[in-house]
Amino acid sequence: MTTDTLPKQISVELKIGGAWVRMGGIAKGAGMIRPHLATMLGFITTDAAVDKGRLKKALQEAVNSSFNLITVEGDTSTNDMVLALANGMAGNKNFKPQEFKVFQRALNFVCLALAKMIVKDAEGATKFVEIQVEGARDRAQAKKVAFKVANSPLVKTALYGENPNWGRIAAAVGSAEGAVRENRLSIYLGVVRVLQQGVAVKVNQQRLNKVFKKDQIQIRVALGLGKFATRVFTCDLSDKYVKINAEY
Amino acid sequence: MTTDTLPKQISVELKIGGAWVRMGGIAKGAGMIRPHLATMLGFITTDAAVDKGRLKKALQEAVNSSFNLITVEGDTSTNDMVLALANGMAGNKNFKPQEFKVFQRALNFVCLALAKMIVKDAEGATKFVEIQVEGARDRAQAKKVAFKVANSPLVKTALYGENPNWGRIAAAVGSAEGAVRENRLSIYLGVVRVLQQGVAVKVNQQRLNKVFKKDQIQIRVALGLGKFATRVFTCDLSDKYVKINAEY
Repeated sequence: MTTDTLPKQISVELKIGGAWVRMGGIAKGAGMIRPHLATMLGFITTDAAVDKGRLKKALQEAVNSSFNLITVEGDTSTNDMVLALANGMAGNKNFKPQEFKVFQRALNFVCLALAKMIVKDAEGATKFVEIQVEGARDRAQAKKVAFKVANSPLVKTALYGENPNWGRIAAAVGSAEGAVRENRLSIYLGVVRVLQQGVAVKVNQQRLNKVFKKDQIQIRVALGLGKFATRVFTCDLSDKYVKINAEY
Repeated sequence: MTTDTLPKQISVELKIGGAWVRMGGIAKGAGMIRPHLATMLGFITTDAAVDKGRLKKALQEAVNSSFNLITVEGDTSTNDMVLALANGMAGNKNFKPQEFKVFQRALNFVCLALAKMIVKDAEGATKFVEIQVEGARDRAQAKKVAFKVANSPLVKTALYGENPNWGRIAAAVGSAEGAVRENRLSIYLGVVRVLQQGVAVKVNQQRLNKVFKKDQIQIRVALGLGKFATRVFTCDLSDKYVKINAEY
């Protein structure tokens, strides 16, 4: 049994070093989604000729910037899986470094597209939310802060209620481990800056409310501590999520 | 504004080394509760004569085994606080070590009682849940596993739905960092063992369902890896929680 409501598939075709290469991907998953590859499944196929070692490395990179950056409710499944299969039917020669980069970009694109489809079909979700964190001391801090905001039930219910309560975002950021400095913290909801280096900005409330009425919402957190950034894709928490998982 | 619906207060009176000592405590908090002392407040007063350093140490110990072991939705507030005040009116002499132990036990009792009252008044909650973890390699692993189970939205919605879905508990345990061994893992719901060293136990389903119909539920996770244990107090996740926090 699955709670998926939409098919998740994508294919691309591109010319690499003279040969036409095709790549297709399918995925499933709508709940228990906070992959840490390891009940989400993803299968990617390509007719490219690419050796096992390079394909594995390419998939690892693509997964790190796609499936490993999504979360529905923060519950990691112990058996998520993404597989890539290559049969060499495209007839290309062994990829030169420059060509391999093109292949990598295609694989990144396919994985990210599938990962986003999973979030859009998340159990009970009404919003697709991108959390951007920038100015982190290192990548680990950026990810920790982004996932802390993304998985906060208080942030998720505010998103569901279309309530631009950025105090909950600031609280989630502040409670993430790794010393955040309040007087350097800025927060943007869509294009509206609500907090500038620790000081609340006087904003047009109607304009702000509009941001949260949209189906797709962007939250940007600038830590002002360093030069590392990441983004995470998530959704809101609705009473429908509770209903689905209380009854199932 | 607060979402607390019940007063949270307790007082005790006990004789320590010939003097009658009184201790009282009050607390507030119903949401954004996963204290890491640091919008939960707790105030404890006593008429004991106890110096600042010892009172601070005693409070730290009491808080670690009470307020720091509760969670409502896993959102840590950045401004939780527990204060203890002692005015010395009891007229006791400086506590001897044995007497200080009695004082410590009283303080532990008061803090734990208040912490449990907070969980019982948690936003939208219908169940009071105790998660026990034993057989951990160290205390950090025990706490990590216990909070992973306690904060899992899938476990919390199953509790709300009165659905003894122990697979979700096992998945939360397995996704906690720190190498859990499947073939050593046992899980008990109330007094019913559902998993014995990685093997599902054939259980009387009606008996099991009864456990989840109660207002107070005990979940015990035995890791079989070492001798460390902890317990965490939490609640279920209901559509009322979503409603309260989407509208507020």
